[in-house]
Amino acid sequence: MLNIVKIGGKILEDTQTQKDFCSQFALIPSPKILIHGGGRTATALAEKLDIKTEMIDGRRITSSEMLEVAVMVYAGLTNKTLVANLQALKCQALGICGADLDLIRAEKRPIKAIDYGWVGDVKKVNSQALQSLLNLGNTPVIAPLTHDGKGQLLNTNADTIASEIASSLTDNQEVRLIFVFEKKGVLEDIENQDSYLKTLSYAQYQAQKQAGNIHEGMIPKLDNGFAALQKGVKEVIIGQLPTDNNVENMVGTRLIAP
Amino acid sequence: MLNIVKIGGKILEDTQTQKDFCSQFALIPSPKILIHGGGRTATALAEKLDIKTEMIDGRRITSSEMLEVAVMVYAGLTNKTLVANLQALKCQALGICGADLDLIRAEKRPIKAIDYGWVGDVKKVNSQALQSLLNLGNTPVIAPLTHDGKGQLLNTNADTIASEIASSLTDNQEVRLIFVFEKKGVLEDIENQDSYLKTLSYAQYQAQKQAGNIHEGMIPKLDNGFAALQKGVKEVIIGQLPTDNNVENMVGTRLIAP
Repeated sequence: MLNIVKIGGKILEDTQTQKDFCSQFALIPSPKILIHGGGRTATALAEKLDIKTEMIDGRRITSSEMLEVAVMVYAGLTNKTLVANLQALKCQALGICGADLDLIRAEKRPIKAIDYGWVGDVKKVNSQALQSLLNLGNTPVIAPLTHDGKGQLLNTNADTIASEIASSLTDNQEVRLIFVFEKKGVLEDIENQDSYLKTLSYAQYQAQKQAGNIHEGMIPKLDNGFAALQKGVKEVIIGQLPTDNNVENMVGTRLIAP
Repeated sequence: MLNIVKIGGKILEDTQTQKDFCSQFALIPSPKILIHGGGRTATALAEKLDIKTEMIDGRRITSSEMLEVAVMVYAGLTNKTLVANLQALKCQALGICGADLDLIRAEKRPIKAIDYGWVGDVKKVNSQALQSLLNLGNTPVIAPLTHDGKGQLLNTNADTIASEIASSLTDNQEVRLIFVFEKKGVLEDIENQDSYLKTLSYAQYQAQKQAGNIHEGMIPKLDNGFAALQKGVKEVIIGQLPTDNNVENMVGTRLIAP
């Protein structure tokens, strides 16, 4: 089983939380892949540099200056800090982004009602190159940047990258996609940590979403999770890594296809 | 023949010069490795962030804040811009630093007369991991950062990294180390571009250095170049890449061992 783990915001922002996560991730048997975001660190750097973070409908617009910040923070500071921490735990981490090895080819999102700037929609994953790295026993650590094949780097949502990469690797092995989350899973009652759903079917998700019961930030994760299931990923879980090496023991919400 | 090319300062700073360099580098037959610095871009970002660049005896002191800037610029912006440009030219570039795959283990430079801060002296190159990437047909693009194996990233001189990497790979193939330079080579008369030496022996270098005829910025390149020759690197050249794919035609100064 290939385990693909995606982490985001809060886990990356605090040095100790990040180290604790790395200790848990290092325990997972290989082959495995780590995909990370880096949101608020980039926002903080942009503020220091007087670059305005423009948001439209809750989505960040990527100006040229903001893209440079994203490349510096995601592919630089966040990626290499994770790699150094994992290497200290004897995990053979290899930090890359979607431009490396032509791993994730994307196209700049077409301008319709909104111009999102230098944002890339995924066109093609080079699963063969990724598989070669896994076959060497390496653990790819992937920053959420892509490229257009013409020299332009692009900013792409890390949940989407996780889903696309997981889907692309199902030919050679069973794949489990894990969205690591600060809560125990998808909560029925947002005030109660223990109210997490053990499973969530696509039909239930649609009903809950229509009823307005799904938190806005959760929607991209769930959409990407269900898309991965549909494309052959064996298991998709949203929750917390176990403190032992048995991912089967993971606390979280397992997505169910139908 | 494995060609290892090191580029620095001026070539990286200007977008067009960098693209021109990438076009020349892409022509060199594989296997090949690119090692880059990134000096002045990091200094400029540090200035914008109000981080003071402390220099002692012409050497930069790496504070914690400066290390973060170096990681963001070298491993982030510079590295991934080069990778995206090379990928556009069908060169299968893979951007990494010395922490990735435990490629370059270093130790923090001991505090003697000067505390250099987070600067690493190279202890060990994981040539096996690098060779595996080359065997897959990949072109490693290496940023000048190392790690101590305990989770700490360190800043290491790019000329030193180039020399250490070249020396480590001589068991399996002949290695040529090329320091790409804005001048045609080591100049006899600094005012005259065409006065470059075709060859420079170690004895000549020592004599010229003692006579004060070698420019200060050239000394680390030459020291690292002669060290590589001594450790089994076949050829070391300082100069300019040719505009065709024949590195034998390169204009530059060839170092000679004795």
